[in-house]
Amino acid sequence: MNFQIIKRTLGFLMLFEAIFFLVPTLTAAIYWEKEFFDFLIAIGICLAVAGLCLFRKPKNTNIYAKEGFVIVALSWIALSLVGAVPFVTSGVIPSYVDALFETISGFTTTGSSVIPSEQLESLPKSILMWRSFTHWVGGMGVLVLIMAFLPLSGARNMHLMKAESPGPQVSKLVPKVRSTAKVLYLIYAAMTVLMFVLLVFDMPVFDALNTAFATAGTGGFAIKSDSMAGYSAYSQIVTTVFMVLFSINFNSYFLILLGKIKEAFNLEVRVFLGIVFAAIAAIALNVLLTDGYGYSVGEAILHSSFSVASIISTTGFATENFDLWPAFSKTILVLLMFIGACAGSTGGGIKVSRTIILYKGATHEMKRVLHSKQVKKITVDGRIVEHEVVRNVNAYIIAYILIFVASLLLISFDCQDLTTGFTAVATTLNNVGPGLGAVGPAGNFAFFSDFSTLVLSFNMLAGRLELFPILLLFAPSTWRK
Amino acid sequence: MNFQIIKRTLGFLMLFEAIFFLVPTLTAAIYWEKEFFDFLIAIGICLAVAGLCLFRKPKNTNIYAKEGFVIVALSWIALSLVGAVPFVTSGVIPSYVDALFETISGFTTTGSSVIPSEQLESLPKSILMWRSFTHWVGGMGVLVLIMAFLPLSGARNMHLMKAESPGPQVSKLVPKVRSTAKVLYLIYAAMTVLMFVLLVFDMPVFDALNTAFATAGTGGFAIKSDSMAGYSAYSQIVTTVFMVLFSINFNSYFLILLGKIKEAFNLEVRVFLGIVFAAIAAIALNVLLTDGYGYSVGEAILHSSFSVASIISTTGFATENFDLWPAFSKTILVLLMFIGACAGSTGGGIKVSRTIILYKGATHEMKRVLHSKQVKKITVDGRIVEHEVVRNVNAYIIAYILIFVASLLLISFDCQDLTTGFTAVATTLNNVGPGLGAVGPAGNFAFFSDFSTLVLSFNMLAGRLELFPILLLFAPSTWRK
Repeated sequence: MNFQIIKRTLGFLMLFEAIFFLVPTLTAAIYWEKEFFDFLIAIGICLAVAGLCLFRKPKNTNIYAKEGFVIVALSWIALSLVGAVPFVTSGVIPSYVDALFETISGFTTTGSSVIPSEQLESLPKSILMWRSFTHWVGGMGVLVLIMAFLPLSGARNMHLMKAESPGPQVSKLVPKVRSTAKVLYLIYAAMTVLMFVLLVFDMPVFDALNTAFATAGTGGFAIKSDSMAGYSAYSQIVTTVFMVLFSINFNSYFLILLGKIKEAFNLEVRVFLGIVFAAIAAIALNVLLTDGYGYSVGEAILHSSFSVASIISTTGFATENFDLWPAFSKTILVLLMFIGACAGSTGGGIKVSRTIILYKGATHEMKRVLHSKQVKKITVDGRIVEHEVVRNVNAYIIAYILIFVASLLLISFDCQDLTTGFTAVATTLNNVGPGLGAVGPAGNFAFFSDFSTLVLSFNMLAGRLELFPILLLFAPSTWRK
Repeated sequence: MNFQIIKRTLGFLMLFEAIFFLVPTLTAAIYWEKEFFDFLIAIGICLAVAGLCLFRKPKNTNIYAKEGFVIVALSWIALSLVGAVPFVTSGVIPSYVDALFETISGFTTTGSSVIPSEQLESLPKSILMWRSFTHWVGGMGVLVLIMAFLPLSGARNMHLMKAESPGPQVSKLVPKVRSTAKVLYLIYAAMTVLMFVLLVFDMPVFDALNTAFATAGTGGFAIKSDSMAGYSAYSQIVTTVFMVLFSINFNSYFLILLGKIKEAFNLEVRVFLGIVFAAIAAIALNVLLTDGYGYSVGEAILHSSFSVASIISTTGFATENFDLWPAFSKTILVLLMFIGACAGSTGGGIKVSRTIILYKGATHEMKRVLHSKQVKKITVDGRIVEHEVVRNVNAYIIAYILIFVASLLLISFDCQDLTTGFTAVATTLNNVGPGLGAVGPAGNFAFFSDFSTLVLSFNMLAGRLELFPILLLFAPSTWRK
């Protein structure tokens, strides 16, 4: 393990976090909030740690796969540990464990909160801005951002990119990893600006900025007690569309820019859009045909579209309390939590491409059982999926199930019912935000014990970094010489 | 597809079902019940179908893997279709779909029932006996039984055995498949007799016989409205022990008979027993330390042991309504439903050996990601697990998840809450019996629509036959020339 390069990366990370903190600091200055000083303290901590870490230049800047995983995991933990400080010093979240949960929920773009939603409007605007901005930073990945600006470890950057970017396969858009990182962030920033412009016609600048940040990262921290229910249908529709757009592989946007429209709509994107439209139709019909909801056809489609986009993109905004919908609709939403967004997007979940590979792998194996090996290879978009990738995805899903089961057992002491426990784990591990029952859109995560809060925080990190980097930290062999 | 051999096997199957029907017919004769004639009708149907099928001898008796799967799937469906007749003609279950569910639940040793438990004591004894006896027949497998007596298809019997016996790998105990089938049934019968003898000291002969049949098959149909709660602690302990014994790979008993004690306690058995004891301790402590249950230490251990044995063996008997236990205990029980029993036992679920292979496969893959291929092969009990087997188990689990998710969606229209839907699918697909919520130990499956009843019946068959045989029936390529 190359500890020098880990230290150096953490140093750069802290410099960047100091810059991130400028956003809420500026907000506090504009609104004359006393939290200005809390963010200054946080900036001070970042600079002090950065100074300690960057004091000496490392001789060896090589990063191998293992270092890549460990650096990414430690970076996200460090980022959250410091990011939680202003919540505590400002008194908004007195418990540090709860503040850490909130910060991890922000950076991992989960959006689960320990703050009761009815208190949101009375929070300092700078704190709300910090929550939303953590979503934006976490969405595309913080190391990818650093990479776009700084030469972290020469030609070995790919290992960092692989460890931080979601999906079973990571491809470079352009030959150089650093240029790829720049292209990704440019597309990300441009789309965020576009969304902000479309929203600012219809809501205050502060609201538009927060909503754009939280949607771009597919995070879902709300600034209103009723999440998005109070905004106009126009804003809700804009948000619905952008939640879907931010769930699509950013490679597709790059391909569209290059004029390769056909390649942009690859199998994953087509399957994703197919699932979105099928789920919207099924839920809209279900609530329309079930007595007692009284939606008009338009309302049913609007709420169904918003909820489906919010859940499958793993954003977690709400316009309606879907915990009150019929069991069929709720079952669909829970399933969407697991599928999640496309690989290479800002969304979470198992990812559509992994689901496709899992499905193709299973049917392929069934054919092999019967026709004894005379079966063609698995292909996606006409390209052969290497058996290596299929194995990796299978291992992923088993590790996923193991973490799911272990978390469920660990937090079940704090749950009154199984639905709360099950969806609390599902919503954190898939980085969605709200679950059902006590953690539904009308509830929050404050009632969990410190222990369960840490378990769920672990889940959010594991989900965002796709399990292996975080699991590696617990493997003794990682730390052996 | 060799249709001649399929027809012939179905013919033999009907002959055997006619013999099975003699058990409840005799019961009806002893108790002077009018259902005597219902069972005579059923025997008549069996003999008529057998006559039609066995009219001509097939020229080609070859069975390949595909035929093996299809024969087993069709046999179990045919067995259930005819087995359901007496329930309808006797008027006990007026709806044929419900009767089919009950019969499939019997043969697959699930034990989920559409009959409200408070009506059980008023049912004819011959009907109760038929329910229990279907468990016994289904436990070890009906084709395995036929094979023990008849030469079905010469040297190709192994394909049938593989398709009907549970677990990722099927091994012959003795060189010949037919002799293996005989040995298995001898052990099975001897253990059933032993259990009957131990029970008959403490309960009426009829009760002891039914309980022994239902436990041996790890089925769980009860003959009392309070399942096993009304029996003495002695009978409950005997049943607990035998539920565990019938969940252990029968190969182990054969090895014990050969004096190979050490080999009998292989990794799967050790892990299984470890899970059983850990779960008993965890649940006993949980109900003791949670206010409001008022169990003595002895009662807590007794109820905890009984419930754990009942659920992990996928029997489904109850001494207490565990749906009322704390969430932690309920979570453990739901997890045990999925793990299930050992391969090669009469129990259901995913099986302990598959769980072990899944776990080892995932950790193995993680090591490969880091150390790039310099990783040893996966071993169990010192033997290398072929990559073929690992792939097969991975495909199994994905197919399992797909069936689970599809069923959950299809039945969710009939469910008030997610726990009911989730555990209804879990309990049928794992052949357990009771779930939680509306399908808990105090509930039943009568409220489901015909459509959902058929979905859950499909799940029970898919679970018992381990997915592939039943899925194959739906693949167009199976029926192509």
